[in-house]
Amino acid sequence: MRIARFVANGRIHEGEVVEDRVVDEAGRSYAQSEITWLPPVTPTKVVGLVLNYADHAKELGLDAPTDPVLFFKPLTSLIGHGAQIIRPAGAEQLHYEVELGVVIGRHCRKVKAADAFDVIRGYTVGNDVTARDYITNYFRPPVKAKGYDTFGPLGPWVVVDEDIDPDNVELRAYVNGELRQQGHTSNLIHKVGPIIEYISEFMTLEPNDVILTGTPEGISYVQPGDVLRVEAVGIGALENPVASE
Amino acid sequence: MRIARFVANGRIHEGEVVEDRVVDEAGRSYAQSEITWLPPVTPTKVVGLVLNYADHAKELGLDAPTDPVLFFKPLTSLIGHGAQIIRPAGAEQLHYEVELGVVIGRHCRKVKAADAFDVIRGYTVGNDVTARDYITNYFRPPVKAKGYDTFGPLGPWVVVDEDIDPDNVELRAYVNGELRQQGHTSNLIHKVGPIIEYISEFMTLEPNDVILTGTPEGISYVQPGDVLRVEAVGIGALENPVASE
Repeated sequence: MRIARFVANGRIHEGEVVEDRVVDEAGRSYAQSEITWLPPVTPTKVVGLVLNYADHAKELGLDAPTDPVLFFKPLTSLIGHGAQIIRPAGAEQLHYEVELGVVIGRHCRKVKAADAFDVIRGYTVGNDVTARDYITNYFRPPVKAKGYDTFGPLGPWVVVDEDIDPDNVELRAYVNGELRQQGHTSNLIHKVGPIIEYISEFMTLEPNDVILTGTPEGISYVQPGDVLRVEAVGIGALENPVASE
Repeated sequence: MRIARFVANGRIHEGEVVEDRVVDEAGRSYAQSEITWLPPVTPTKVVGLVLNYADHAKELGLDAPTDPVLFFKPLTSLIGHGAQIIRPAGAEQLHYEVELGVVIGRHCRKVKAADAFDVIRGYTVGNDVTARDYITNYFRPPVKAKGYDTFGPLGPWVVVDEDIDPDNVELRAYVNGELRQQGHTSNLIHKVGPIIEYISEFMTLEPNDVILTGTPEGISYVQPGDVLRVEAVGIGALENPVASE
């Protein structure tokens, strides 16, 4: 089941995506061109991981950290499928990062890795847009570089399906249709179960909180006018154009 | 006007503190012993500043940064006046940090320092509890060291009063009644107006978002059984005992 949040006819709806149509709570069906996609969930926090793929750490010339290195993506950065990523005036080094997003299903703390699947609601796709101009230390990503408004495309939907194995998902990112980034969650240094154990050891996770699990090798700079497509195969693909401020 | 959120008779109320009593929306008055304090606002984000007092940077043996260094305090860390700060098993280096909290009053972006007071709703007191055990780099405070559940006492109330000058507030922290930390917001490296300009340049601030403006010199380790009192003179004093996990 693919669950989306969207605006249609002046209201926010939560509904289901059925084949190519979007169906609201009342059963009314819309073409995708009739709606505006919103981020599929309203989390209380979005927790990201940096340097969680060895190949990506290597392309940055860094050793991967032993413990997960976490950051928060502010909720004000989130946008839906199709919305514009605004490149700030003054930023030259904007890049995309395709990531598997894990959506939490219930209040939980001190979850063991082996029980992590009991607290997962579903999966989505995240683009952890970053202005590298403002990064001075890769092990502690600053709030600004990843926190600009529009730097958090998320969606298009949440897939709720117990058969999905989050450790076996192929990731791809395209710029203007050209494949630039490719990876697989089987190569995550910290896999989904251990990530949930690590985070929930110190902090309560709440329903619809999102964990962005990290990005593989293949980042590159993008410009206003470029169209970014980040895909988690079998889950969804999120397309967002880059615009200038 | 001092505005509080509290639980009384099984419900969450927002009301006013009048002398020593707390008055709910319906005008019903409670003794403070009859209520449970909640954090006075429900923000969408809490943004903190590190190393924003030169004397505090010096006590840590660090140079103060040129640009503000920001972090997010997760909403799940927030607790109200009187609630217990839980020291995690395994953490030895727990410390308090008294801070002036600025509460935002409206959606805003790209606010100039000179206009910052137009977007402020009021002021509160924060205790940016930190487990230094988990800090490896002071310029990029990790999510874990400041993000544990209960590490964000906030309150007891929001003071809404246009006559308060946030750059002229005395701060004090007491441990078991003994004065341990003392400072003054006139010594902030980045003052409230410039902080709001810096943050809102890249990120939308929303009503009830909280900015914790930094802590002065005088941190020290505390133990389960200790009672922490952090005070912004003229605004309020927040008292929280430390308990073991």
